[in-house]
Amino acid sequence: MEPSGVITILSDFGLADGYTAAMKGVILGLAPAAVLVDVTHLVARHDVIGGAYVLATSAPYFPRGTVHLVVVDPGVGSSRAAVAVRTPSAWFVGPDNGVLVRAVGERVEEVVEIHEVPGRGGPQSATFHGRDLFAPAAAHLCLGRPMGALGPERSGLEPLPVPGLTRDDEGLAGEIIHIDHFGNAVSNIPSGDLPSDRGGLVVEVAGAVISGVARTYSDVEPGTVCALVGSDELLEVAVTEGSAAERLGLTRGDAVRVRGRG
Amino acid sequence: MEPSGVITILSDFGLADGYTAAMKGVILGLAPAAVLVDVTHLVARHDVIGGAYVLATSAPYFPRGTVHLVVVDPGVGSSRAAVAVRTPSAWFVGPDNGVLVRAVGERVEEVVEIHEVPGRGGPQSATFHGRDLFAPAAAHLCLGRPMGALGPERSGLEPLPVPGLTRDDEGLAGEIIHIDHFGNAVSNIPSGDLPSDRGGLVVEVAGAVISGVARTYSDVEPGTVCALVGSDELLEVAVTEGSAAERLGLTRGDAVRVRGRG
Amino acid sequence: MEPSGVITILSDFGLADGYTAAMKGVILGLAPAAVLVDVTHLVARHDVIGGAYVLATSAPYFPRGTVHLVVVDPGVGSSRAAVAVRTPSAWFVGPDNGVLVRAVGERVEEVVEIHEVPGRGGPQSATFHGRDLFAPAAAHLCLGRPMGALGPERSGLEPLPVPGLTRDDEGLAGEIIHIDHFGNAVSNIPSGDLPSDRGGLVVEVAGAVISGVARTYSDVEPGTVCALVGSDELLEVAVTEGSAAERLGLTRGDAVRVRGRG
Repeated sequence: MEPSGVITILSDFGLADGYTAAMKGVILGLAPAAVLVDVTHLVARHDVIGGAYVLATSAPYFPRGTVHLVVVDPGVGSSRAAVAVRTPSAWFVGPDNGVLVRAVGERVEEVVEIHEVPGRGGPQSATFHGRDLFAPAAAHLCLGRPMGALGPERSGLEPLPVPGLTRDDEGLAGEIIHIDHFGNAVSNIPSGDLPSDRGGLVVEVAGAVISGVARTYSDVEPGTVCALVGSDELLEVAVTEGSAAERLGLTRGDAVRVRGRG
Repeated sequence: MEPSGVITILSDFGLADGYTAAMKGVILGLAPAAVLVDVTHLVARHDVIGGAYVLATSAPYFPRGTVHLVVVDPGVGSSRAAVAVRTPSAWFVGPDNGVLVRAVGERVEEVVEIHEVPGRGGPQSATFHGRDLFAPAAAHLCLGRPMGALGPERSGLEPLPVPGLTRDDEGLAGEIIHIDHFGNAVSNIPSGDLPSDRGGLVVEVAGAVISGVARTYSDVEPGTVCALVGSDELLEVAVTEGSAAERLGLTRGDAVRVRGRG
Repeated sequence: MEPSGVITILSDFGLADGYTAAMKGVILGLAPAAVLVDVTHLVARHDVIGGAYVLATSAPYFPRGTVHLVVVDPGVGSSRAAVAVRTPSAWFVGPDNGVLVRAVGERVEEVVEIHEVPGRGGPQSATFHGRDLFAPAAAHLCLGRPMGALGPERSGLEPLPVPGLTRDDEGLAGEIIHIDHFGNAVSNIPSGDLPSDRGGLVVEVAGAVISGVARTYSDVEPGTVCALVGSDELLEVAVTEGSAAERLGLTRGDAVRVRGRG
């Protein structure tokens, strides 16, 4: 796989400090032609599950050979490993705390533990691995240099503690894993697990009973609660021109059930 | 017109999700050399008027041949058209709901309805035209490819439902159309409509009576309410080193009157 | 010094208006190959001290020959000078109000007052020096053009009104100068001023007495208040997996004392 030259950056650093810019400065010093794209820096502090979701909804759209740099890292300085991962379509660099797992899926081809980055320079700090370890490692991969130079191979990644789907005679049970800027509540139920007759389904969440899974926001009257398959191919609950999270008082972790009608 | 290679992006997506990054990934996959510039993603949800204003205050400063990608789109999935517009200095891509109108002005040279983008790949979604239709169309234009390949020609754009100016014996009447980060309240009254003796004018807004239109913030004492022509050549109400919106309790839509001094 | 091609931008413009994008458009019109990196635009309005801190924590990590463009400018339009500064490793462009001082340090090699930028075009405004003066000046330097073309030389920079350190028989006294996104409270006490036996130190702030300066966040139990040297080599007060600012009710300006253990 040839590097695309693109490095995406996702963190929980917020937007008011100089931390992200320092990482970018380090990268541009090592890989001057890198194209840097912010995914978000507003992941809730140390929210590994939320970070994993946002990464998984954006990474697939980048060109093959992109490096995804992720710093949502409650355990910085602790014994959690820093890792680099290669899939058939991308590299990922970040802490081995599960934040990479949703984006990487079953497609891991190689994992190494990052111990040092050859040629890395500048001041170093025990508290800022993003700048002093992850950013140089991302630059290293973006330059087409070997993963093996970063450290020893590992057999796999730590899992992400996310809820799983269950299926019984009643149908599918999952839960809300993310609420977006528009108040849409995204579940962990993939569209591929829904039967093809979506109009005949019933979705239950927070006491609301929604009949049918709409094709698009415009299929329902403005202001109506509806279920539909979002742009990330997950079932979500929405209100056209409104906020489902506000309307139904939804929060992350709320149970979602899907069953056939009557 | 040669493409400049720059694509600006303006949306109401907020900064916490992966939606904007997904659009950027799609663009970089199609046009790897594109230079991406965020205008803002904090347009209020579905606020077509606010988005139109911000676009108009930034687009003129970009090099000739820039593509402006705009996704403020209450009607995604509905029958509103997706359009690409060419002016003598730029291309614009977005929904035909008026959001492009202030930036485009009277300078439309060609409008096409976007039906499909040749060579577009990746998963597609009925709910995310930004990623699956507008972003590929912007990349297409940035590569210098023909507008006609996107779809059939249209005769013009839908209007933006914005307030107009009125002029009577008393003077000019307009209203506040935007309140910026500093609490400056921008009206829809262009400097070109003001008489040259600006010191002799009186501006009335929200019960306040302001004598004279200042040349710059420094012409008035700190803390004083003043009227001046802002950097976008529109009359605005400001408080030096303070917030006019807070001081006068201003909100968008408040009436503004300009008349000669008694 | 050769330009690196990178221009960083730091301002108090917020993220909802088109001001920053307009500056970027101007730069890309003059220097199409410039690589633009946002540091932050969420400096508190007119907070010269906060802006100076964030600039100083990010600028050192950029490649040699980077141009740092800074617009935190309470005095726009007043008599404060617009300046360009050269150090052995970078250029800085901004108002001469102290905001550049922490980043520049003792390393000033040349200062000029910016009067005009040769070849600058587009509409101009008395209220937006960021777009009409600073941005073109940054592009000019990024293109490798001479500082002398911008205006006359000056002998130095205005100071930044920041608190100094004092040292007496009791130890060191400083204060909190910045509170970051994670609630870490950064003082103005550099690690170089601390004795080497950091475990034997006592740090006092807001009534709390902290024993020892930790090496990293992981050296203390989650939830514990600790003192450590942050990534910017300044003493800071933190709570592992929590917010020191919330826990201790810290605000900028609070006194910090460091002394040997009893």
